[in-house]
Amino acid sequence: MKSFLHVSDIGDLKKALAEAAAVKADPYGWAHLGVHRTIILVFFNSSLRTRLSSQKAALNLGLDPIVLNIGKESWQLETRLGVVMDGDKSEHLREAIPVIGSYCDLIGVRAFAGLEDYAYDYAETVLQQFIDYSGRPVISLESATVHPCQAFADLITIEEYKTKPRPKVVLSWAPHPRALPQAVPNSFAEWMNAADVDFVITHPEGYELDPRFVGGARVEYDQMKAFEGADFIYAKNWSAVGAYGQILSKDPSWTVGRRQMAVTDDAFFMHCLPVRRNMIVTDEVIDSPKSLVIPEAANRVVSAQVVMKRMLESL
Amino acid sequence: MKSFLHVSDIGDLKKALAEAAAVKADPYGWAHLGVHRTIILVFFNSSLRTRLSSQKAALNLGLDPIVLNIGKESWQLETRLGVVMDGDKSEHLREAIPVIGSYCDLIGVRAFAGLEDYAYDYAETVLQQFIDYSGRPVISLESATVHPCQAFADLITIEEYKTKPRPKVVLSWAPHPRALPQAVPNSFAEWMNAADVDFVITHPEGYELDPRFVGGARVEYDQMKAFEGADFIYAKNWSAVGAYGQILSKDPSWTVGRRQMAVTDDAFFMHCLPVRRNMIVTDEVIDSPKSLVIPEAANRVVSAQVVMKRMLESL
Amino acid sequence: MKSFLHVSDIGDLKKALAEAAAVKADPYGWAHLGVHRTIILVFFNSSLRTRLSSQKAALNLGLDPIVLNIGKESWQLETRLGVVMDGDKSEHLREAIPVIGSYCDLIGVRAFAGLEDYAYDYAETVLQQFIDYSGRPVISLESATVHPCQAFADLITIEEYKTKPRPKVVLSWAPHPRALPQAVPNSFAEWMNAADVDFVITHPEGYELDPRFVGGARVEYDQMKAFEGADFIYAKNWSAVGAYGQILSKDPSWTVGRRQMAVTDDAFFMHCLPVRRNMIVTDEVIDSPKSLVIPEAANRVVSAQVVMKRMLESL
Repeated sequence: MKSFLHVSDIGDLKKALAEAAAVKADPYGWAHLGVHRTIILVFFNSSLRTRLSSQKAALNLGLDPIVLNIGKESWQLETRLGVVMDGDKSEHLREAIPVIGSYCDLIGVRAFAGLEDYAYDYAETVLQQFIDYSGRPVISLESATVHPCQAFADLITIEEYKTKPRPKVVLSWAPHPRALPQAVPNSFAEWMNAADVDFVITHPEGYELDPRFVGGARVEYDQMKAFEGADFIYAKNWSAVGAYGQILSKDPSWTVGRRQMAVTDDAFFMHCLPVRRNMIVTDEVIDSPKSLVIPEAANRVVSAQVVMKRMLESL
Repeated sequence: MKSFLHVSDIGDLKKALAEAAAVKADPYGWAHLGVHRTIILVFFNSSLRTRLSSQKAALNLGLDPIVLNIGKESWQLETRLGVVMDGDKSEHLREAIPVIGSYCDLIGVRAFAGLEDYAYDYAETVLQQFIDYSGRPVISLESATVHPCQAFADLITIEEYKTKPRPKVVLSWAPHPRALPQAVPNSFAEWMNAADVDFVITHPEGYELDPRFVGGARVEYDQMKAFEGADFIYAKNWSAVGAYGQILSKDPSWTVGRRQMAVTDDAFFMHCLPVRRNMIVTDEVIDSPKSLVIPEAANRVVSAQVVMKRMLESL
Repeated sequence: MKSFLHVSDIGDLKKALAEAAAVKADPYGWAHLGVHRTIILVFFNSSLRTRLSSQKAALNLGLDPIVLNIGKESWQLETRLGVVMDGDKSEHLREAIPVIGSYCDLIGVRAFAGLEDYAYDYAETVLQQFIDYSGRPVISLESATVHPCQAFADLITIEEYKTKPRPKVVLSWAPHPRALPQAVPNSFAEWMNAADVDFVITHPEGYELDPRFVGGARVEYDQMKAFEGADFIYAKNWSAVGAYGQILSKDPSWTVGRRQMAVTDDAFFMHCLPVRRNMIVTDEVIDSPKSLVIPEAANRVVSAQVVMKRMLESL
């Protein structure tokens, strides 16, 4: 595996899920793979779960993880080509990336969407430069348009908790005070479309996701109707794609609460975290026994470890 | 040991001191205990000694330490329950804590007192949530009211340097430009009360520590009288408990200098560091051969290692 | 080796280069040396290459590296002696340094020149305190006046790429929007003077380096003349030494471009990075096949590893 951005990068999902189960059952079973190898985890944005779970996954594999917080402990990086660098950015990605590559065997990169320029974000401009110039396998730790380690962990979690061969999974938009990227819903949609589930997306009009991620999923604008008979509710805020990066609604009726959960088939509640309580979901729902937010976060170690393991095996 | 906050958590002090001596004599003698285990060190506040000594103690035990600086590299965390999270805090401790717990075997937490709300601070609100929700043994790396790794290191240092079976130990308030928490004097008092020493606390009126920490210690408002015949002087600033978090005095006559040390029995000088020179103590005293501030700091590795060792042995 | 600041600290250069080649050929061949040993890497300033390459070098040797970013995650440190510490700095280097020393076996320190006080900077005030008070071997990771790990990596790179027994090496000043320290040109000059090369320094008048670093090097104020027949061009900005820390010129005609490279003997282009593109060097030159900036950065692991290896061997 030379990069991990899309569901297609992981190949057969049944095989990947079996590998995830094996890794979870025996986390240190492949601890020899990473010996004398290093992964650099580059963060252009804050992180809790992704940083910790990636470090832990690396340690489980015997890898030495090195964390680099760009702009906090290193230089501000220029990402545009052809400019005269007379401003506040003292280094260009064109140098920083191959240099980072020369010090490690694998690279993970967190680089959120700026939400100002659709073309720049949806070309995965920053991550693509890491792929093109580092000479190393690159993992998206949430980049401009995708968060594949999260979506893979979500799929593992659904596989563990499902009680029907083909559960109904609903991705629901929910309100949030700030404009957020589409990376999580994009990847979740991409992975659910590839998985053996009945997948529905629900959101207010104007919040349509990019068609390349919606794929063949059903879109239902009536949240209550979408939730009927659901087995898994996956809540998430995102900003608009059409009116790029805009907040079109903060409608509190979309906050996932008891009312919506009542029409599901006793559904599990999922969220990638961090979650704004009583904006995205009520305390009551997230604190209920049907909430999977913690097991889901715990599975982030498993998904990251499968990806790093595959990359190490292919070095 | 399920948590480390109070002297009672370490059990018999003679046994703990013997274990500290054994660990100091052979730092790598228990390096097998931590293999394939991880400790996450969570810092809500700055640290030098605590971070470095905890990392070193973990490495000595074969543990993988992961440092997390909250608010610098992760999200700002909400600590209040029941709120609508529409402000600048994007994650709640109720999620962050069990997530952190799911990625490690032990947790250390630094979370200073806010000094605005006595009840909130003295309930150890943040640390208690880590104990309640993480599912892991939790070490206070200085929390709102205690700094037990420091007090244990102080006791080890006194044990190493004492020349009498029952030395006189004086905890003295000293001036400081800012309002500081009571965690260090609280823990020092708690540990000295439990140890085999003649313990005296001296401070200006109004600086009385919380009764649960003062215990049966003698309190003497006259600093010079308190210092008479002392074997160990432990200087520290703290803000008032009654007028909670207030600075009631910056009286420079309390700065520990040659004048006060002259009435002691050639006492050793101790301070937890960081120390404000010529506020808490004069250059002359801290730079004298009787200053133990560096051996005391070095013993932070020993105290932390004994605590982590005990926790690993009880997993 | 008790400290690493100057070319004289590494001893015979031929031997050092042979050792560098051996380390590069077998990076893990000395992985036993660092077992149960720790290096603390202290950063008063930002870093990318130095931090990552030092960590990687340490890991290759089996050392546990601990990174400490001063002022970001620890306390602000006072460096002046004899002051009443009633300001915003809560700890003095006189305590911090021996404490750090007590937690590790080796220390690396990055502490840039302040460029305000020539005497303070050129006495290497901060680094010298680490050497005097830590009790550990100390490596300059760019201090006020030198960057020896960089200069050693530069020499390794020249050794690898040279096609003549005694190549012509030109250190050229180039414009930059900010006032930069002289550490890199100082060390480069010092190492080139000690190496078997024909060394020339070129810069506008007023940018003369400190005589102790210029040594016997030829200084040529005409950049084009200096470049004639050169085999290696080493570009770098620095601020004035005489008018200490001042920017005397931003003359864009000194930007290294095709015009200057045309008069060389098909010279390689070198820079320590981070580099301001189209200020120091044109895109065309840095992106050409003759640019060595990436192999040069990669050799930072090698130079750091040789230095740490020597220090470990002498413990």
